[in-house]
Amino acid sequence: MSASTFEDVTSLTFDVFGTVVDWRAGIIRDGEGMGLDLDWHAFALEWRALYQPAMERVRSGEIGWRKLDDLHQMNLEELLARRGITGLSEDDINYLNSVWHRLDPWPDVLAGLARLKQKYVLATLSNGNTGLLVNMAKRAGLPWDAVLGAETAGAYKPQPQAYLRTAEMLGLAPESCMMVAAHNGDLAAAAALGFKTALVLRPGEYGPGQTTDLKPEAEWDVVAESFLDLAEQLGCP
Amino acid sequence: MSASTFEDVTSLTFDVFGTVVDWRAGIIRDGEGMGLDLDWHAFALEWRALYQPAMERVRSGEIGWRKLDDLHQMNLEELLARRGITGLSEDDINYLNSVWHRLDPWPDVLAGLARLKQKYVLATLSNGNTGLLVNMAKRAGLPWDAVLGAETAGAYKPQPQAYLRTAEMLGLAPESCMMVAAHNGDLAAAAALGFKTALVLRPGEYGPGQTTDLKPEAEWDVVAESFLDLAEQLGCP
Repeated sequence: MSASTFEDVTSLTFDVFGTVVDWRAGIIRDGEGMGLDLDWHAFALEWRALYQPAMERVRSGEIGWRKLDDLHQMNLEELLARRGITGLSEDDINYLNSVWHRLDPWPDVLAGLARLKQKYVLATLSNGNTGLLVNMAKRAGLPWDAVLGAETAGAYKPQPQAYLRTAEMLGLAPESCMMVAAHNGDLAAAAALGFKTALVLRPGEYGPGQTTDLKPEAEWDVVAESFLDLAEQLGCP
Repeated sequence: MSASTFEDVTSLTFDVFGTVVDWRAGIIRDGEGMGLDLDWHAFALEWRALYQPAMERVRSGEIGWRKLDDLHQMNLEELLARRGITGLSEDDINYLNSVWHRLDPWPDVLAGLARLKQKYVLATLSNGNTGLLVNMAKRAGLPWDAVLGAETAGAYKPQPQAYLRTAEMLGLAPESCMMVAAHNGDLAAAAALGFKTALVLRPGEYGPGQTTDLKPEAEWDVVAESFLDLAEQLGCP
């Protein structure tokens, strides 16, 4: 795929959880550090499984707008109750819930973003709230030019407004933005609105048993194995 | 003033036009480059003088929300008509209006922000729209952790919502934010909401004849002569 195909693209908009950072490893790391005797891999997957249903309650209007930190907290409390885990202090729960602010990027991310940043405006287009994403970026050294997404749009992906408002705030047409994500569904929603698309495969996002998003499910503009591969394909030396 | 006074402050929120960048010099530079025979210093001041009245039309509800790029354009067209300047193409006008995206920082800014960024989350709290501020930062190398302000809040300073929404999106109480501005009025509005305050004097913002904001008009938490002085006073080596 020639980089010249994308000469109108001036901004890359990034999904974050799974695409940029490894949420599963971060939850396992901080969970184990708390000294609780748990299967933290399983806990991480269960917590993450409550993510889409919680956002769906907001999307459907069943509950009013809540930022992702608050949805994570609601889900965490449900999960702790379901597993009969008691005895955690409020500070413990707040610490555990803020693990999403302390996730590490995949090994290729920082070097890839440094190359991509020379040519493109790099923006988040994430369901994470702004404060979460800013804290994560500060800790991990993610060099975003803009932190945008659900909270600024007041809408959770894959609702169109999340994508459209992000492009609008960058002052760009959707066609000038390329959505970068590890998830086919995210790219499908973006492509339907005019975004260019790049799939970066993260076959370890859910651990060894992952069955989804192992390959492209449509003709995305770019399919890359890492952010370095993406930089290469977009002509960013 | 001891840095320990501000141990609860985790983010610095910056006014941009005048405080971070020299809008007058930028307009003169690009205006003169267009080959139009004009007093560009006077033109810059006249254009800027239309800024507050235009925002006031939005604040008062006389007109609906418009981002600053659009208010700048409305003001520019009014100014060109008033001065009887005709013959500019649409491209010329768009180029001139986008000068606000191409402003250079004051000489102390990049070195000062690099020091401050080691300790604080650096966010804009500007009336500039997001795309304008992102383009400016990209060109000038301003290392913002978050680009926030009027457009994300849907309110122009000094309306409280502009400040409060910025703090909220950072996940912070106003008391954990320090407003940095060259304008006493901006600091007064922020302080009334609980923000800490730092006045950075920019006696050349309006050129040699400047009569306003030459000194502190209240007991701000910090008064600094430059961003380097601010870094020094906040204990950022």
